[in-house]
Amino acid sequence: MPILCVGSVAVDSVETPFGKAERVLGGSAVFFTAAATVFNPVEVVGVVGDDYPLDALGFMAARGADLSGIERKSGESFFWSGRYHYDLNTRDTLETRLGVFADFRPRIPEPFRTSRFVFLGNIHPTLQHEVLDQVDAPELVACDTMNYWIEGNRKELVSLLERVDILLVNDAEVRQLADEPNLLKASRWIRERGPEIVVVKKGEHGAILFADGWVFFAPGYPLEKVFDPTGAGDAFAGGFLGYLARTRALSPDDLRRAMMFGSATGSYAVERFSVDRFRTLEAADVMQRVQEFREMTAFETHVEVRKNG
Amino acid sequence: MPILCVGSVAVDSVETPFGKAERVLGGSAVFFTAAATVFNPVEVVGVVGDDYPLDALGFMAARGADLSGIERKSGESFFWSGRYHYDLNTRDTLETRLGVFADFRPRIPEPFRTSRFVFLGNIHPTLQHEVLDQVDAPELVACDTMNYWIEGNRKELVSLLERVDILLVNDAEVRQLADEPNLLKASRWIRERGPEIVVVKKGEHGAILFADGWVFFAPGYPLEKVFDPTGAGDAFAGGFLGYLARTRALSPDDLRRAMMFGSATGSYAVERFSVDRFRTLEAADVMQRVQEFREMTAFETHVEVRKNG
Repeated sequence: MPILCVGSVAVDSVETPFGKAERVLGGSAVFFTAAATVFNPVEVVGVVGDDYPLDALGFMAARGADLSGIERKSGESFFWSGRYHYDLNTRDTLETRLGVFADFRPRIPEPFRTSRFVFLGNIHPTLQHEVLDQVDAPELVACDTMNYWIEGNRKELVSLLERVDILLVNDAEVRQLADEPNLLKASRWIRERGPEIVVVKKGEHGAILFADGWVFFAPGYPLEKVFDPTGAGDAFAGGFLGYLARTRALSPDDLRRAMMFGSATGSYAVERFSVDRFRTLEAADVMQRVQEFREMTAFETHVEVRKNG
Repeated sequence: MPILCVGSVAVDSVETPFGKAERVLGGSAVFFTAAATVFNPVEVVGVVGDDYPLDALGFMAARGADLSGIERKSGESFFWSGRYHYDLNTRDTLETRLGVFADFRPRIPEPFRTSRFVFLGNIHPTLQHEVLDQVDAPELVACDTMNYWIEGNRKELVSLLERVDILLVNDAEVRQLADEPNLLKASRWIRERGPEIVVVKKGEHGAILFADGWVFFAPGYPLEKVFDPTGAGDAFAGGFLGYLARTRALSPDDLRRAMMFGSATGSYAVERFSVDRFRTLEAADVMQRVQEFREMTAFETHVEVRKNG
């Protein structure tokens, strides 16, 4: 049961306190696919210029990524470069060149239109609408966005929410979208506009799922070495949806486990530059980290505590 | 089995987006005691001026706080005033007047010297040393500190670590003390200098316990209304140690539960100004929040996930 994923397929140059990677694989669709294909096939839709090293995506194709929806156009690929600060929690964008991505209009290939799971990566909300216009009623639509669209295209974005089942965004974006600093209230504001579920990604602090009447926390995996935070949020979404698509179940228990799978794949993303850690990552590795998460969060409540007794 | 607690007993004036509280109860020892006495008696050592409304601490005395170690001196009590910003995550200190606290030298009353549990609130590390010089070998010494002492009294603080079993600090303080941005490495650096356990408090993001070979996460309780964040860290410490002192057990399972009790009492602290929420808080309320935490973190791992199968 493949997931249809539409997003950016980019070239990144990244500088961290630990090193520098020049012109490596990047973009929301690429990070998502690298993580999701550990569990489940992905159909990728995007656009690249004639400078793009499509061969470098081969390792994803080998494990179930269908890249036939990636258009190749004359011109430069979407290019982003950035530099992370000492603590890796803040970064400066050094350069963004949209290239062929500037005129991107997603065309969903016929065979992808019946996908039951859709992931709308962080692109213009109008394009996200256009993707949904081209697919048969999917079981699950998940969506990411960013401050740029929240500020500049709020109307299109809010109307998109009606068509989304799960919104996955970071904490600043949730607050900005709902114009409400309290996460519980902000996620309720969003859920009232469409998505049954809001997943708030908080980087090293983990993630929180807000649903109707319940909340679930996934911690961030405590890593000895965070090498490059780029793409962690998309890799979270990839693990989260990859797990759900694999099991094809959407009960609260499945969603809870999916959060842990997302947090695990997000943590693997930051261990190397670009999508490099996923080249050799196996489902068993992810399972092991999920098992560790259980040890890091499980506790018994059945001990009696008497007051001043 | 009372806990000996030494810290500031202060007067606070606080402004938040939701209101203003003038000259209310504050200080590390007061927030700690308000939370800990929900479970366990506390012996408080501190100093106040002749302006202090000692009667207002009566509700804590009624549930097991022994206030006979609070010296009353001629002069003004420690006064702090601050204003929280829109998102409540940042604040400006408007004024700090040390008053009689400037010359505070903790004198531990004879009956308190045999306490098995000691909490060293955030005061000068040299005074924290002096407290430990006056007590018989306690079972457990827990300690808080802040950036001010880390910057100005590093040597005294690092030598204090040798005498501490559990250091409870926030994430910025852990990083600053160890001069290391990675929390896992920073907490190891600290543990190599004495404390078996480092508890990192992260406000709304919860808390992490780092021990020898294991790690445990407590989420922050998702509150609809954060009224006043002042004292949440001390209230966390109060719930954490109050639980441990109540059960008098220090196994990993007990420490895990203690983290949840700390996170629960920390969350109650921010629901009202000052220690007001603790006036009516019962152990059963805390237990209920701990039970909710379990529902917010529990998940099953025994579902098989096959790779692209």
